[in-house]
Amino acid sequence: MIAINDLRHVKVEAARTARARYRAGTIEPTSGIAPGFTQANMIVLPRDWAFDFLLYAQRNPKACPVLDVSDPGSHATLLAPGADLRKDLPLYRIWRDGKLAEETADATVAWGEHPDLVSFLIGCSFTFETSMVEAGIEIRHITDRSNVPMYLTNKACRPAGRLHGNMVVSMRPIPASRVADAATISGRFPAVHGAPVHVGAPEEIGIKDLAKPEFGDPVRIKPGEVPVFWACGVTPQAAVMASGVPFAITHAPGHMFITDIPDSAYHA
Amino acid sequence: MIAINDLRHVKVEAARTARARYRAGTIEPTSGIAPGFTQANMIVLPRDWAFDFLLYAQRNPKACPVLDVSDPGSHATLLAPGADLRKDLPLYRIWRDGKLAEETADATVAWGEHPDLVSFLIGCSFTFETSMVEAGIEIRHITDRSNVPMYLTNKACRPAGRLHGNMVVSMRPIPASRVADAATISGRFPAVHGAPVHVGAPEEIGIKDLAKPEFGDPVRIKPGEVPVFWACGVTPQAAVMASGVPFAITHAPGHMFITDIPDSAYHA
Repeated sequence: MIAINDLRHVKVEAARTARARYRAGTIEPTSGIAPGFTQANMIVLPRDWAFDFLLYAQRNPKACPVLDVSDPGSHATLLAPGADLRKDLPLYRIWRDGKLAEETADATVAWGEHPDLVSFLIGCSFTFETSMVEAGIEIRHITDRSNVPMYLTNKACRPAGRLHGNMVVSMRPIPASRVADAATISGRFPAVHGAPVHVGAPEEIGIKDLAKPEFGDPVRIKPGEVPVFWACGVTPQAAVMASGVPFAITHAPGHMFITDIPDSAYHA
Repeated sequence: MIAINDLRHVKVEAARTARARYRAGTIEPTSGIAPGFTQANMIVLPRDWAFDFLLYAQRNPKACPVLDVSDPGSHATLLAPGADLRKDLPLYRIWRDGKLAEETADATVAWGEHPDLVSFLIGCSFTFETSMVEAGIEIRHITDRSNVPMYLTNKACRPAGRLHGNMVVSMRPIPASRVADAATISGRFPAVHGAPVHVGAPEEIGIKDLAKPEFGDPVRIKPGEVPVFWACGVTPQAAVMASGVPFAITHAPGHMFITDIPDSAYHA
């Protein structure tokens, strides 16, 4: 991994333009947007819950690889100087007592309810999709301009403090002849979920119907393709639900924070 | 990285024997002991300081790669079932208000002062020494049966909450023809400090005299050898000093916790 400070020369217009559009109100899934720039999941919690969550992330690094943590009360991040985490994602979810209370394109009002919110930015598998496309592996949800399908599994994460829950996975159908390549390429990006956690046999991880993802949209699976599952940064939202967390702000699944950091920075 | 639960078949006698000797009172540096088993630095802090430290580690991952975090009040770790973190290291340091107050072979009494201590186990560069030796690279402090030399640098870590301080590095003299191999081999172990942070030119990182390490013992440097520096898990102790942390227990530099986890588990 390359030090963030060594990347300051990178031309970041594409990332800034996308964030400006979202700040202005555009809502869209971010897969395929600003290719080559790392995207991040987000969860924002009061300071009182911050240690529990950071420990949950440390204990479940494949699902929750932490890229940056803001100081309490700040809405800035090292990963995109000048960005405002309250406004620059396309769509947010506000959670109360473990339940989805609201979706909004601007989280400023909800953010104002707590003076000490800590923001966690978590690696996203969209980051290695560009490398897979460059290797000739089609990413179906990019081709079809839909959101990636995500499923709640039966795999329990290791609990931490008051937080517990199961892993969420994203799924991409991959031709059987390219599954090994997809595993190898994504494995080079351990900070953004890395190699798949499961290949084929969805019922083994509690997925009954691939056509009915808990988050995102279903995708076409062609004959000869195998469903390949990667740990997903929506896992914190499953923990919010399972643990009845009193207050949280997250991104809406598939609607990520686009950073100024090139994907290559997270190449092992 | 391999999941801890997939490693339960490993024969762990060598690690257990070493821990039992330390519990019985033996004091020795642990480099070269129980070869093939991962060794860990330790810092133990009251729950009130735990988020600050976990964030410090997240922001300084080369110096502070976290391998495990205990629950508050526990002295057990997933990395060595049955071990007692209060007794099973060869030598401890007790810190009060940022100053070294005591060195002891048994931290049980000090541990009893706080009911909510959280233990952090942090990767140690001893972990990749076995691979370097197998590749024909001599590790001088193992040859000479001394403690590895460690230096406080002028490189500031990224602060977190109340914690700040400079990076500590370990140094190994490496023949010029093998420096690239040493970098490559250690780079395969990102969870235990990974590749060197600095090669040659010690004055550039504020080291004035290689013969006077801040921690550990000086080592012989032969003609044709280059001093190679790796981020070191004593960095948290530098933060304890610089930040005036009210209470902490750590390992004594070079006197590590020996886990049941084979080094190969941390091979990327």
